[in-house]
Amino acid sequence: MTTIQDVARAAGVSAMTVSNVINGHPNVRPATRERVMAAMTRLDYRVNVAARNLRKGRTGTIGLAVPEIDRPYYGRLAAALIAAAARHGLRVAVEQTGAVRENELAALSLSRNRLYDGLILSTVGLGPADADRLRTDHPLVILGERIFGGPVDHVAMPNVDGAHAATRHLIDRGCRRIALVCGPLAGETDVSGLRHSGYTRALTEAGLPVQPDLVRTVDRLTMAAGAAAARELAFGGRGVDGVFCVTDTVALGVLRGLADCGVRVPGEVKVIGFDDVPESAYLVPSLSTVDPDHDLMAARAVDLLVQRIERPGQALERQEFVSPFRVVARESTAAD
Amino acid sequence: MTTIQDVARAAGVSAMTVSNVINGHPNVRPATRERVMAAMTRLDYRVNVAARNLRKGRTGTIGLAVPEIDRPYYGRLAAALIAAAARHGLRVAVEQTGAVRENELAALSLSRNRLYDGLILSTVGLGPADADRLRTDHPLVILGERIFGGPVDHVAMPNVDGAHAATRHLIDRGCRRIALVCGPLAGETDVSGLRHSGYTRALTEAGLPVQPDLVRTVDRLTMAAGAAAARELAFGGRGVDGVFCVTDTVALGVLRGLADCGVRVPGEVKVIGFDDVPESAYLVPSLSTVDPDHDLMAARAVDLLVQRIERPGQALERQEFVSPFRVVARESTAAD
Repeated sequence: MTTIQDVARAAGVSAMTVSNVINGHPNVRPATRERVMAAMTRLDYRVNVAARNLRKGRTGTIGLAVPEIDRPYYGRLAAALIAAAARHGLRVAVEQTGAVRENELAALSLSRNRLYDGLILSTVGLGPADADRLRTDHPLVILGERIFGGPVDHVAMPNVDGAHAATRHLIDRGCRRIALVCGPLAGETDVSGLRHSGYTRALTEAGLPVQPDLVRTVDRLTMAAGAAAARELAFGGRGVDGVFCVTDTVALGVLRGLADCGVRVPGEVKVIGFDDVPESAYLVPSLSTVDPDHDLMAARAVDLLVQRIERPGQALERQEFVSPFRVVARESTAAD
Repeated sequence: MTTIQDVARAAGVSAMTVSNVINGHPNVRPATRERVMAAMTRLDYRVNVAARNLRKGRTGTIGLAVPEIDRPYYGRLAAALIAAAARHGLRVAVEQTGAVRENELAALSLSRNRLYDGLILSTVGLGPADADRLRTDHPLVILGERIFGGPVDHVAMPNVDGAHAATRHLIDRGCRRIALVCGPLAGETDVSGLRHSGYTRALTEAGLPVQPDLVRTVDRLTMAAGAAAARELAFGGRGVDGVFCVTDTVALGVLRGLADCGVRVPGEVKVIGFDDVPESAYLVPSLSTVDPDHDLMAARAVDLLVQRIERPGQALERQEFVSPFRVVARESTAAD
């Protein structure tokens, strides 16, 4: 049977370098990697990674549980997380929870069952009542919403401040009757609730009334729901001159719905989103938005998880990181 | 130590049902699953999935190697593949290759090294010369492009026929000077080469000349590249009245680039893409496109891989599946 030493000799490198290639470490030069891999192929070398990981009590894989990987926001985040994990020699298995609480709990359970070395959970379905389920005896980082005061590491979006800045941006551009399109307002602990509170704070600070009939809640934050909400707002005779959408995906639907009603953006209504998905810069009109720093959030989430993985059983202080953000002004909120 | 029987007793179900919950089998009723999981939490039951998989010689995880998970096409495909794999009780680890040949080979190597039970590889960087690397001694399915005549199962896009139909659609809508925006034309074996051949066939069949100056190749199939290509076409005085873009992502950029030049779509130029990403229906104007059946492709790819995984060492006949498709006519190619 071929050994790692055989491969090293054939490729003219050290056994450590062969090991680094196998483990996907980033600091191997491409030419060296190629040579090692050619030698592995030639000699038919196989390392049983599963067995090796078992000896270390690890799988080399972390879980990432997100609602839907094909929504641009999660795709963008997953791309950044997979890249960040690769820098630590870790692979990422993606679970889709469909934003269903039971599936989020199942992902937690799989991680506890050692299928993953740890889990990054972007939760929508879990609430504060589930805090006791989020025990810290297995590496876990909650990513996205700022719902848990519990004992779990957390990388959060700048929900309230980002929403406040987006609404403030519309006010600065002259909007006075600003609608909000968001998900169900079940409380102030989920993404829509948090962004709603940023929206109301900005209105109140500017001396503008908070009008419930300008808040349109949709069941799911989809393009279809955004388009339907916009058509309602446009036909409602409410004199809306600005719309803050809780996500860029919803905003993309809102832009479509306003076009369906012949409403000009930004001439008659200005629109701003939240997330800065890649498409937003290329829409016609291009979409103003709030840009949380996805790459930074991803890097911090992976760093926190790796700390937990590398110090099992140690009582580390719970950490929270709230991403910085910036407002990206584009055509959809351009001044007249 | 808590056993699977303890959990079964506490939840009032059979041990098999507990096992099904642990393995993520789809046929467990939600209420039952919730009860079993509550019992597992209460009794602090842990199954070491890694150890169990090792006994079976499996990891329960398949690899999916794609260029970039945050491009809408791959996000859409990954979502469908993860859902299809879940129906087989398999998890999906996502590798991003950046369309780099070396990274695609690394993904193959990881799969051979038993980190995954098998690999679905959406390759951009590998060519016919790499066919000997694609040995069939470990489960592998090539997904996407139709480049290998080799001994590997293959789920292919309807590249030539889809491109032919898209171009034909523009001709039917009155276009006579039809541009193509595609990637580098290195040969007829990659996606751009294949779709280019569908484009030229449609033109030739319609008695239209194939004009090299109407074919714009871009280095990467991005929105930015599409926008730049459109600006060149619009300013080139070439009288273009239709554009076939090899992907919807490129088309999104082309629509933006044409808008930058004040060119009306579909009035002056009609545009069609390929992929039917979720955004295409909501753009203004909405984008006509070719819809390959992503869900069917994903299901077939996973089915083929599972066949290989479940019959290791058996010489199964190489299988190839080319997805059906349909042209989706939207505003961007509407008749005047």
